[in-house]
Amino acid sequence: MGNLYIGLLHYPMRNRRGDVVTTSMTSMDVHDIARTAKTFGAARYYVITPLKTQREIARRLRGYWTEQERTRENTNRGEALELVSVLDKLEEGILDISDREEKEPLLVGTSARHLDERRMEYEEATDQLREETKPMFLLFGTGWGMADELTSQLDYLLPPIEGIDEFNHLSVRAAVAVTLDRVRGSGRIN
Amino acid sequence: MGNLYIGLLHYPMRNRRGDVVTTSMTSMDVHDIARTAKTFGAARYYVITPLKTQREIARRLRGYWTEQERTRENTNRGEALELVSVLDKLEEGILDISDREEKEPLLVGTSARHLDERRMEYEEATDQLREETKPMFLLFGTGWGMADELTSQLDYLLPPIEGIDEFNHLSVRAAVAVTLDRVRGSGRIN
Repeated sequence: MGNLYIGLLHYPMRNRRGDVVTTSMTSMDVHDIARTAKTFGAARYYVITPLKTQREIARRLRGYWTEQERTRENTNRGEALELVSVLDKLEEGILDISDREEKEPLLVGTSARHLDERRMEYEEATDQLREETKPMFLLFGTGWGMADELTSQLDYLLPPIEGIDEFNHLSVRAAVAVTLDRVRGSGRIN
Repeated sequence: MGNLYIGLLHYPMRNRRGDVVTTSMTSMDVHDIARTAKTFGAARYYVITPLKTQREIARRLRGYWTEQERTRENTNRGEALELVSVLDKLEEGILDISDREEKEPLLVGTSARHLDERRMEYEEATDQLREETKPMFLLFGTGWGMADELTSQLDYLLPPIEGIDEFNHLSVRAAVAVTLDRVRGSGRIN
């Protein structure tokens, strides 16, 4: 089975006006998504931001949970943070995966917008992970979504998560959870 | 189709040692889960805590998003917070739903632990919502999960969300997203 890697990107993103910006990292994104990644068996979770001060915050948070908090807990909740790597560029994540796997990952993006080109259905992603030996790097944006200069680099894009309402503003934390459950949840990879 | 209501409970919960406690509300739980509830078409999202100061915080947060922030936004993200009602007891939520619907809701809980009694599969919950006219009140715990005095009041319990790892510590924000997608996501209620 191919290994699954998760990336959370903070640049280049769109803001509410459509400008290309660097978004702020939130500590909840590091923490929640690490737990989701661990639950669904991801090999690594890369938190990627060009801002040095924010990388330092992410590393301190990881240290707190993997070292201090763990000694107080009788659960293994802190283990999730061990999956976290903090990087400054997408390319470094690709390089790290390529080094670990000895092959380049397939870059699969997610978007709240419908994009017809390079569309990959959730079932196809599940099949890809089940059958192929190529690792998959599943990428999530922040703010108002990935800028075009980023999506143009991706091999495939999963369709937006749609509920039953026109409203489509899931938090990235919720979007990661639903996406991993669809791609790799119980009953789907047996 | 039966209406779906979401409840986030902060009492009676277990702490890491198994004692029955009131957990702290986090603003992210109000905000994220409102967006998830709106996306998947929930009729109402009840944030339930016996702590008056925390109810005030939840109400202020709702006011900020539904009034102030909305005027700055060109999206409808703030609409999600209009689903939020802040209550002190589960019974008040049941009463509110009963008043709106003119019938009592089915109480369906979620748990990270396996409980064999009164188990309802995700597909059964989907069918229940599709076919029955009875509303469903889907309840989520916080901390280390619902105390037995709470689960004993429920009609049904959904099984734990399992990924592919033994690790099973999704945040409640992630658990709500996965549960609503499974019960009511696109392609499941057509």
